[in-house]
Amino acid sequence: MKVSRRTLLSGAVTSAAISRRVRAQAPSDPTKVRGRPTRAVGQRAGSVTLQRHGRAGNSTGTPHEDLCGIITPSDLHFERHHGGVPEIDPSAYSLLIHGMVERPLVFTLADLKRFPSVSRIYFLECSGNLGRTAGPETRPGQLAGLTSTSEWTGVPLAALFREVGASAKATWFLAEGSDAAVMTRSVPVSKAYDDALIAYGQNGEPLRPEQGYPARLFLPGWEGNASVKWLRRIELSDRPFMTREETSKYTEPFANDTARIFSFLMDARSLITYPAYPVTLTPGWVEINGIAWTGSGRIARVDVSTDGGKTWTAAQLQEPVLPKAHTRFRRLWQWTGGTAVIMSRAVDETGYVQPMRAELLKLRGPGTTGYHLNPITGWVVQDDGRVIYKEEAWG
Amino acid sequence: MKVSRRTLLSGAVTSAAISRRVRAQAPSDPTKVRGRPTRAVGQRAGSVTLQRHGRAGNSTGTPHEDLCGIITPSDLHFERHHGGVPEIDPSAYSLLIHGMVERPLVFTLADLKRFPSVSRIYFLECSGNLGRTAGPETRPGQLAGLTSTSEWTGVPLAALFREVGASAKATWFLAEGSDAAVMTRSVPVSKAYDDALIAYGQNGEPLRPEQGYPARLFLPGWEGNASVKWLRRIELSDRPFMTREETSKYTEPFANDTARIFSFLMDARSLITYPAYPVTLTPGWVEINGIAWTGSGRIARVDVSTDGGKTWTAAQLQEPVLPKAHTRFRRLWQWTGGTAVIMSRAVDETGYVQPMRAELLKLRGPGTTGYHLNPITGWVVQDDGRVIYKEEAWG
Repeated sequence: MKVSRRTLLSGAVTSAAISRRVRAQAPSDPTKVRGRPTRAVGQRAGSVTLQRHGRAGNSTGTPHEDLCGIITPSDLHFERHHGGVPEIDPSAYSLLIHGMVERPLVFTLADLKRFPSVSRIYFLECSGNLGRTAGPETRPGQLAGLTSTSEWTGVPLAALFREVGASAKATWFLAEGSDAAVMTRSVPVSKAYDDALIAYGQNGEPLRPEQGYPARLFLPGWEGNASVKWLRRIELSDRPFMTREETSKYTEPFANDTARIFSFLMDARSLITYPAYPVTLTPGWVEINGIAWTGSGRIARVDVSTDGGKTWTAAQLQEPVLPKAHTRFRRLWQWTGGTAVIMSRAVDETGYVQPMRAELLKLRGPGTTGYHLNPITGWVVQDDGRVIYKEEAWG
Repeated sequence: MKVSRRTLLSGAVTSAAISRRVRAQAPSDPTKVRGRPTRAVGQRAGSVTLQRHGRAGNSTGTPHEDLCGIITPSDLHFERHHGGVPEIDPSAYSLLIHGMVERPLVFTLADLKRFPSVSRIYFLECSGNLGRTAGPETRPGQLAGLTSTSEWTGVPLAALFREVGASAKATWFLAEGSDAAVMTRSVPVSKAYDDALIAYGQNGEPLRPEQGYPARLFLPGWEGNASVKWLRRIELSDRPFMTREETSKYTEPFANDTARIFSFLMDARSLITYPAYPVTLTPGWVEINGIAWTGSGRIARVDVSTDGGKTWTAAQLQEPVLPKAHTRFRRLWQWTGGTAVIMSRAVDETGYVQPMRAELLKLRGPGTTGYHLNPITGWVVQDDGRVIYKEEAWG
């Protein structure tokens, strides 16, 4: 890259300005100054500015481009709500379980905590997680920020169903939230006997308000919306309840004039978090790094292409690979200059392969919703090293 | 318990006062009020007050009694520093590696992040983690709050040692921090080729300032002090450096007039986090719940006694059991009233069994330091249900 005298000078000015700012905060030799004492609750370093994507509204995304590992800090977990985040008095909280049961019961938060608990590391993903991209300047968290991973703690729903004496004939249950949307979803009872939780803990602490404090339904690997937050009522039945959300939103039309409803499972997907917009690479070795996940269990393999999908090689997966959790993948790559299209493709333990965008859109047809779209995506490294988003590049 | 009219009345007054306070915050029917919009960075619920134990100073402990699962929220990770928490400008950060190497090199933070990274869930424990107990009113986080678990991300130190061409004759390295204490420790080079990291990520985000931002040494399973924070220099040598901390603090005298130095390994330990002070039980089923950990690898078993150590039964371990990480254990127990002494005992995959206090103190002798004390501890459930700490009860 050619550097003009003007660039050099303006660069020098900027550096000096930054230096002055930083110097005001951090001593030039920290060993000569006694540091600050302990704090009751920690804060991030002043130079670390992390925030979710999205303006004040009903949805924010996790800034995956700024994060590492698989745990999402709780205050950066994506948010999605339909009536805002309600404020709930935990001492007034209760969960009613009724309908096709022997003994309808009301559980307080203390009651729920008295049951044997489990803790599991799971991802949670909104089914509308293919962000509207803002052209080349789209960041990973804007493309797929509506997925996050936490360690969730709670009581298995199966334990509560045994406590109320759920009828063997009950096949569906209604989950109802106490937010202003009174969010309701129908869920197959079989999920309760598989791995559903009533969760009250997230990454070691009580649920965050926007995650359903004080307690929520948690359906591992299923679309986020069905994991009803601020859960106040469960009703067992022998048929689904056909709630507003199920017909107005979470039904997907297909190209062949059929539609599917109750499409809970989140299929395998992957996201390269580095390099991505707004990174600028310099030639040399680069660790391509990202996350992959599947609602079906474990990620079996993540393939990475650096030539626009002509050839693929398997990335290294970070052990332990946990079921229904983000799995970090990495592949070393030498960028020697020139334009390159990098892409990632997740394969899960059922053999499911993340589809190409064109393939997926053809199947879904012109009336497709934005739900359950998990196409292969990637990034374009331009010959000047700038990394941008360019949908057409991965077909 | 007898309840007088006065107690009842004062109780009623208190409840009403609390009710009023809560009502001012939370609507009685949250479905009738639109909730608040999204936030760029989340906050805990107003009714959740979590903080570390300890006053402003050089040490705080994780409030294990308030937490669940194995991940410690980063802002509640224990703190221990010898010269306060320095403020470091990340753009000015550098790590020098020199001494018995072919190519002494200085790494910036960006240089470190360019290397292939790994993420691992590990505990970190201060070797002085047997808190001075304040009598019966001691909480789990006051007894053993100087251990926490995070997902740590960084570059294997082995990769950096290969980059600088570490001499095959180098057997020790000095790690030096850039805090006001200029913390220095000698570490065997073999640890670098085992699992040592230069960590820059914690639970998905950059290290917290009190955890060594922007980068620290991380020695999985070893005493926290040796995992030097705010790391600025590593020097390779063929002998230990005998630093101030190694002789003034981290050496343990024994009853047989010998002493040990470089006692890095944190031995297996367990802590019942529920029920514990300040809980009051009511008769019925109780889930005894706690954490166990060992620097030697995986926890193999945690035994729980509810009769003061006469009989022990194995608790259930939360899967996956990760090496060198907190492992959650649980055991259902029916408390039918009367005094009960509950205790926990960790056994790790090497066969090491957490020792009784008397046994440990006898071995260590009258001149024992407070370091590397990992006795079996427990709690006394009094016949009124109040749970207290009482050291004598577990011998």
